[in-house]
Amino acid sequence: MNKNTLRKLSYGVYVVSTWDNGRATGCTANSAMQITSSPATIAVSINHDNYTNKCISETGRFAVSILAEDSDPSIIGTFGFQSGKDVDKFSQVKYSVEDHMPVITDSCGYLVCEVIDKLETETHTIFLGEVKGAELFGDKEAMTYAYYHKVVKGKSPKNAPTYIPEEEEKKAEGTTKKYKCTVCGYVYEGEELPADYKCPICGMGADKFEEIQ
Amino acid sequence: MNKNTLRKLSYGVYVVSTWDNGRATGCTANSAMQITSSPATIAVSINHDNYTNKCISETGRFAVSILAEDSDPSIIGTFGFQSGKDVDKFSQVKYSVEDHMPVITDSCGYLVCEVIDKLETETHTIFLGEVKGAELFGDKEAMTYAYYHKVVKGKSPKNAPTYIPEEEEKKAEGTTKKYKCTVCGYVYEGEELPADYKCPICGMGADKFEEIQ
Repeated sequence: MNKNTLRKLSYGVYVVSTWDNGRATGCTANSAMQITSSPATIAVSINHDNYTNKCISETGRFAVSILAEDSDPSIIGTFGFQSGKDVDKFSQVKYSVEDHMPVITDSCGYLVCEVIDKLETETHTIFLGEVKGAELFGDKEAMTYAYYHKVVKGKSPKNAPTYIPEEEEKKAEGTTKKYKCTVCGYVYEGEELPADYKCPICGMGADKFEEIQ
Repeated sequence: MNKNTLRKLSYGVYVVSTWDNGRATGCTANSAMQITSSPATIAVSINHDNYTNKCISETGRFAVSILAEDSDPSIIGTFGFQSGKDVDKFSQVKYSVEDHMPVITDSCGYLVCEVIDKLETETHTIFLGEVKGAELFGDKEAMTYAYYHKVVKGKSPKNAPTYIPEEEEKKAEGTTKKYKCTVCGYVYEGEELPADYKCPICGMGADKFEEIQ
């Protein structure tokens, strides 16, 4: 069995958000898909360990912000590599409240959903949501997971089903000089890492980077 | 509510297949996503009206063939615009039996799954499958749904959740001379439609095409 086959499934990059007692919270996700067209429903898959999972179960509602190719990649780090239990993620991004839910405005658009069913698995909950609100912010190209990996050179948060352990990632790398962010795994390529460099994904400074082979 | 927002979700293009009393059958799908990594599970969404749905329920197993950018686009038509009840779809494509399941060899690779749970919706079943076998056929680029629409210029089968009624599709078209396949909706663009032209999606001849505005 070659588990790399799973990497050939195609995804977008999303922020799934909801309320936590009046405070906006959410997490990065790539597992979202439309299920039915009338009524429009979508399914999202959220790890049990994500604080967002508990909050969606409590509010019964969630929003999906569909990231665009030109969305600030730090959004992915903000929502993917920190826990909403400890950090006020939405204080770090531009957002608005649409159809009663917090959504990222630096995106293609959003879907606001009401949970109508769910399916539990060992590690993730699949929430089935009926779309109650939806809007586009202009006409932007959606960011695909492949684009994120190839162009933004990002990495999956550990809770993502698409997460690949570090050793396997390393094998896929080339032989040029590379510096890896020890917080989120973002890889900088170049002659030297500038002293004032900040990780475009999680915002950490050059001191958090280490040279990798 | 702008339903076009749903079109910004990203997908791949797949053939979901299984057995029908010893005969291979399947259908085109774009709704497939990984749910958990250990054990590896994926979810696929199949319309109740697809004959494949009934066959998966009976066998408790399915395979997902992940189409590549260079997969013959007629596979999409063969599996998307005909019913496996009436037609022996697999007789029209190259396939092999892997991990006891029929898979399309003109693809990136396959995932063979055992159904471990399911979630019913009004029109679709979400099958949760544990991956029991997986292999890559070389290193090909996976076909995304966006690529299929932009490059192959294909259309969604009516049972797909991403299906958009014909009038709305027309609005999105430009003003050059176009001929549309009346069977699958594939649009040919050019000065004139050659008399011996065959639809690359469903294989129908030029007589099944009509000029559209």
